[in-house]
Amino acid sequence: MRRRFEVVVMLKPGMADPQGRAVEDALPTMGWSGLTNVRVGKHVELTVEADSEDAARALVEQVADRLLSNPVIEDYRILSAEEVR
Amino acid sequence: MRRRFEVVVMLKPGMADPQGRAVEDALPTMGWSGLTNVRVGKHVELTVEADSEDAARALVEQVADRLLSNPVIEDYRILSAEEVR
Repeated sequence: MRRRFEVVVMLKPGMADPQGRAVEDALPTMGWSGLTNVRVGKHVELTVEADSEDAARALVEQVADRLLSNPVIEDYRILSAEEVR
Repeated sequence: MRRRFEVVVMLKPGMADPQGRAVEDALPTMGWSGLTNVRVGKHVELTVEADSEDAARALVEQVADRLLSNPVIEDYRILSAEEVR
């Protein structure tokens, strides 16, 4: 069974986020107001072939923890898993 | 009312994704198999102050379309909007 997962990797709360800051600084120059606390992270999508959803999710957690994120400065969360053909 | 939105920006299907390719190439060296079709995009979170959810969402769509994404090569989608204090 193949499943498509989404993994979100964001800097931990309190960590400086230069990309988010750059977006915030650009907003007023575009004429927009009322937008604050911008954070920019990574969104990873991947397809997993595994016997069960539990096995697939365990593999995605390993990959997210050891390859996609830096656990010292980033948190990750797994958003969804849907079957694909 | 303040609402927290999430915006996902991914390269359009078919566009070469060097970051996704780098992740895929690293997987076997870490001993993992069964993972394919890795795509890496941006995940943006931001807080919007607006009178209504419709007004907030319209503003987020403008920002996503004109600042956060490059519509020629990227698609965006707005994931969620929850009220915050």
